Amino acid sequence: MVESWSFSDTVESNFRPLVVIELAKGTKEETIEWLTKRIVDKKANGGAQLLIKPLVTENGAENIYLVGASHLRLLLGAETVGLVKECSDNSMRTFTYSSRKTFKHFADDNHNFLTMAECQYIIKHELENLRAKNEKMIPGYPQAKLYPGKSIVRRLLTSGILVQIFPLHDREELKKLSHSWYGRVKVGYQPLDDIRCYFGETIALYFGFLEYFTFALIPMAVIGIPYYVFAWEDYDKYVMFATFNLLWSTVILEVWKRICAILTYRWGTLLMKRQFEEPRPGFHGVLGINPVTGREEPVYSSIKRQLRIYLVSLPFVCLCLYFSLYVMMIYFDLEQWALDYHTENESNFSSLMLYVPSIIYAVVIEIMNRIYRYAAEFLTSWENHRLESSYQNHLILKVLVFNFLNCFASLFYIAFVLFDMKLLRQSLATLLITSQILNQFAESLLPYWLQKRYNRRMRKGMCSKKTDTDLSLVEQINVEKEMGTYLGTFDDYLELFLQFGYVSLFSCVYPLAAVFAVLNNITEIYSDALKMCRVYKRPFAEPTANIGVWQLAFETMSVISVVTNCILIGMSPQVDALFPDSKMDLVLTVALVEHLLLAIKFIMAFVIPDKPRDIQMKLAKLEFESLEALKQQQMKLAAESLKE
Amino acid sequence: MVESWSFSDTVESNFRPLVVIELAKGTKEETIEWLTKRIVDKKANGGAQLLIKPLVTENGAENIYLVGASHLRLLLGAETVGLVKECSDNSMRTFTYSSRKTFKHFADDNHNFLTMAECQYIIKHELENLRAKNEKMIPGYPQAKLYPGKSIVRRLLTSGILVQIFPLHDREELKKLSHSWYGRVKVGYQPLDDIRCYFGETIALYFGFLEYFTFALIPMAVIGIPYYVFAWEDYDKYVMFATFNLLWSTVILEVWKRICAILTYRWGTLLMKRQFEEPRPGFHGVLGINPVTGREEPVYSSIKRQLRIYLVSLPFVCLCLYFSLYVMMIYFDLEQWALDYHTENESNFSSLMLYVPSIIYAVVIEIMNRIYRYAAEFLTSWENHRLESSYQNHLILKVLVFNFLNCFASLFYIAFVLFDMKLLRQSLATLLITSQILNQFAESLLPYWLQKRYNRRMRKGMCSKKTDTDLSLVEQINVEKEMGTYLGTFDDYLELFLQFGYVSLFSCVYPLAAVFAVLNNITEIYSDALKMCRVYKRPFAEPTANIGVWQLAFETMSVISVVTNCILIGMSPQVDALFPDSKMDLVLTVALVEHLLLAIKFIMAFVIPDKPRDIQMKLAKLEFESLEALKQQQMKLAAESLKE
Repeated sequence: MVESWSFSDTVESNFRPLVVIELAKGTKEETIEWLTKRIVDKKANGGAQLLIKPLVTENGAENIYLVGASHLRLLLGAETVGLVKECSDNSMRTFTYSSRKTFKHFADDNHNFLTMAECQYIIKHELENLRAKNEKMIPGYPQAKLYPGKSIVRRLLTSGILVQIFPLHDREELKKLSHSWYGRVKVGYQPLDDIRCYFGETIALYFGFLEYFTFALIPMAVIGIPYYVFAWEDYDKYVMFATFNLLWSTVILEVWKRICAILTYRWGTLLMKRQFEEPRPGFHGVLGINPVTGREEPVYSSIKRQLRIYLVSLPFVCLCLYFSLYVMMIYFDLEQWALDYHTENESNFSSLMLYVPSIIYAVVIEIMNRIYRYAAEFLTSWENHRLESSYQNHLILKVLVFNFLNCFASLFYIAFVLFDMKLLRQSLATLLITSQILNQFAESLLPYWLQKRYNRRMRKGMCSKKTDTDLSLVEQINVEKEMGTYLGTFDDYLELFLQFGYVSLFSCVYPLAAVFAVLNNITEIYSDALKMCRVYKRPFAEPTANIGVWQLAFETMSVISVVTNCILIGMSPQVDALFPDSKMDLVLTVALVEHLLLAIKFIMAFVIPDKPRDIQMKLAKLEFESLEALKQQQMKLAAESLKE
Repeated sequence: MVESWSFSDTVESNFRPLVVIELAKGTKEETIEWLTKRIVDKKANGGAQLLIKPLVTENGAENIYLVGASHLRLLLGAETVGLVKECSDNSMRTFTYSSRKTFKHFADDNHNFLTMAECQYIIKHELENLRAKNEKMIPGYPQAKLYPGKSIVRRLLTSGILVQIFPLHDREELKKLSHSWYGRVKVGYQPLDDIRCYFGETIALYFGFLEYFTFALIPMAVIGIPYYVFAWEDYDKYVMFATFNLLWSTVILEVWKRICAILTYRWGTLLMKRQFEEPRPGFHGVLGINPVTGREEPVYSSIKRQLRIYLVSLPFVCLCLYFSLYVMMIYFDLEQWALDYHTENESNFSSLMLYVPSIIYAVVIEIMNRIYRYAAEFLTSWENHRLESSYQNHLILKVLVFNFLNCFASLFYIAFVLFDMKLLRQSLATLLITSQILNQFAESLLPYWLQKRYNRRMRKGMCSKKTDTDLSLVEQINVEKEMGTYLGTFDDYLELFLQFGYVSLFSCVYPLAAVFAVLNNITEIYSDALKMCRVYKRPFAEPTANIGVWQLAFETMSVISVVTNCILIGMSPQVDALFPDSKMDLVLTVALVEHLLLAIKFIMAFVIPDKPRDIQMKLAKLEFESLEALKQQQMKLAAESLKE
């Protein structure tokens, strides 16, 4: 069907499959023909000018296609997506085909100049930017309407003709990466640059943050241990610990920004220009003229969206929050009941029973979180946001608020309504440990086990005992296409965010929280790595310059924790004893200290520069050069114009 | 000396003087010759390609030169400085000479396409960017060293050879502007667009802010009046007023950002690209290689600067703050003495005496502010900042902190140490009114009177009774060069900032403050307008997209005022009476309300978009277009490359 390669440098033999396209079974012949023609067609004719090849399997199924591209095509694609690479003089510059010789490691015959993840990202970008020209519908499917400029691939995905697109693993590379990453027990940093080469910047940045955050928690954990070991309860020691924690959490968040800038500068994404954002696949509306692009595309009134947000989503979220509080009150009734039971018939069983309500509550919280998550996704999708980023922000906000309340409401209640510090400590420990174990299980071990079982069955079916790297391409694709899809770093960051809450909100009550967090994160690195390498399909690389809205979320949490810690310290009997005459003085002192701490936090955040000095210099140098170039150009023009 | 005009479109007759250069008396002939040659020399030879003409006065003094430029030269200069103008399709675009025909009101013979202020700004930019080539020193002045790339004009200024450069007033335009601005008593907006055309964006934006701020204060003033008239002292009414004030101040600051975006979009500065910042004139250091520009220029170690800041400036500022507090304590002793005197021998004189300490203190504060200002300028200059913006930020920070303490420390002391609300109200009134009167006097009326007296003497000297518009060019320049130099909007903003403090910090104690602020601001608009038009030399236009650091300063003030107002309300006897049993509950309630208000403020600031929707759309459209253009270019290149 697709045999006429139109490129001099591409013969069938050096076709390297990069991306897999799976069509629905029984897709019409005319659709396949049209799609492959559009994919291989020349740029000038509105095609993507890529290579495509059907995968011929033993049972003759023809619904899987492999996409690749010539080396030259990939280099031009790198320019289109605005890739930033290192030059021979160690500076980072936006790659252009005409200046290709100035880049480090570039050679016309070096096909490793672009990493495989970059090549796959380029192909994904090209495929998604394959747009309808005059087609009014997808050939063969009259109900799947198109309009000029609509992304064909997105339309195929929403109409179900295209089942999935995913990048292929590179078994060889993956084996090397997983060996250096989690294959051996070692003390040291993760191979972040290798992770970035294989999985892209978003995922590498998550692992970078996870690692950094774990290291940053170590001082808290180390200082926290003696409080537990020696059962210190002195006022001044607790104040010291809390103050250290509060300032430390500001410092680590500010320093992260600097480290993030160093990493993303090295990876080139700090300098990468933002691309114009196309509407997200699920966006729908009446065909109209978009005032920004001037193109005919679906438009949806912003007022309607606002109404949906404020009249439906907001009340729904509030209702969920209320429900969550209601469940919490039931938990406290249960807790009381268990306590009564324990005091009536004291036994080993009854003292075990004491922990049951907390465990049940932790499980219920996890379940509620998951159900709410679906509702939030549905609602946010129904709000019909035009841009993926706006969709993501609304979703994250909804999920964050609910998760925050769900996880911490009971602790707030115990601390500031019941004033029961012992119960607080116990609940905190139970919640923290239960949720960590549940998460690790649900997130990595369970899928890993399922995947392993499936693989075993697959292999049995194939009657072969090959190791992973020996699999033929057909077998590899058959294994990979059934793997789960990694849905992005959202859940991973959320887990860290809630953990940060457990550690910092009540740090002065339970100094051991940081120890558990550190222990959890060390295993988390391994289980997340395992998840990425073995459980899920390879995800497309996604360039990013920072952790986005999560920076804000962590900073907000750190502000809230100043308030809670100050109140907790103010409520402790030791501090109480310092102001025997006047509770007023106590409260005023606490309020004063709180405001001072907040002021110091804001000043520190203001004074610590977000980028290290050398990165600032490098950015300034680049800006200077581009301004100079512009000036030179203008001066030349001016000189010519003024010559009469 | 400069007779050979090298431009076809420039004959002596249509030379329009725009900028005046005053050299020191007795400047060497060779220096003048070199300077004028550099100014008229072609761009290709490193000149500015401007026109220059000596001003021939009756007494034959030859130290004043007029600078102009051909129309074509100005258009090319507009492209160099990145001016943004309105296109025929009402969109704003960066002006380029090649696309000149697409701009509104452009015609090759329309010499009003660029406003006079824009032309002057372009000339200033060209003069300042006249850089040394091979000159090692200024010819004739071996001690005035130069190095390649150093701005010649800045070197001439620092070495005192060049006394001043200033743009000429346009008497005709100025008369029209001042008539529509303050010439007649009318109710209505200021002619902001005309002000912008004549004085540039920075000054127009200040007057825009002043006007907006005055309007924004009116609701506060209106609500405040009945509190004074009916002497309301009810708890709930005060709480209402304070809450309204706090939320209102957040709203007005957020809305200002939107209005500012509307104004600067219309003026083109919102879209203007930032130019690369050259070192400020006063910057000095050892000649070295600048790592950013790669040029040989003075470098100064950042560590040395940090040491100067933290080891000298910071302690000095703290010392000044301490001294200011010390003076405040003396004031309170005086106050006590006056009170004692009044109670001992009660008379009209003694009750007048009660006001004396406050008035003295207000005057002392003003004097201290001014002295400190000189010290701050000296110190910041000594810190040797490379960039003007960094110098300005450090100066503003120093001055703001001191002014804040100086103006408000006594009020804080009265409110939160003496707990004397009556004294607080009285001090607030005295301070506010005294400082307003002093400011208006020192800032506008005094210079105006001095200027008027000088003008009268000048005219007498010239034995003529012409009105301003009839003055000959020579006379006009002689008048203008003796006028004071407007030192920027710093003092004007500072005054508004302190006024905002008086109005918002203690709003629940003295609701009338807003009324005085409104009244002051109405006269302030007139006196500032008078100052700009009649007292000072015309300043160079300075493009700007926002009010910069002042937005942050006002927002910080509004956060502080939440804290102070909550405390004040909590301290009022009416609120006290609501919690007869427990002071604890009172304090806790106040703290809770304060935190809630702060949270609402932050959420409001987050939710209200900084730019109105239509401006966002216009910006998105421009971005889309430039990305599209880039893509087209890349696609063309790709198509060519792939054709083999």
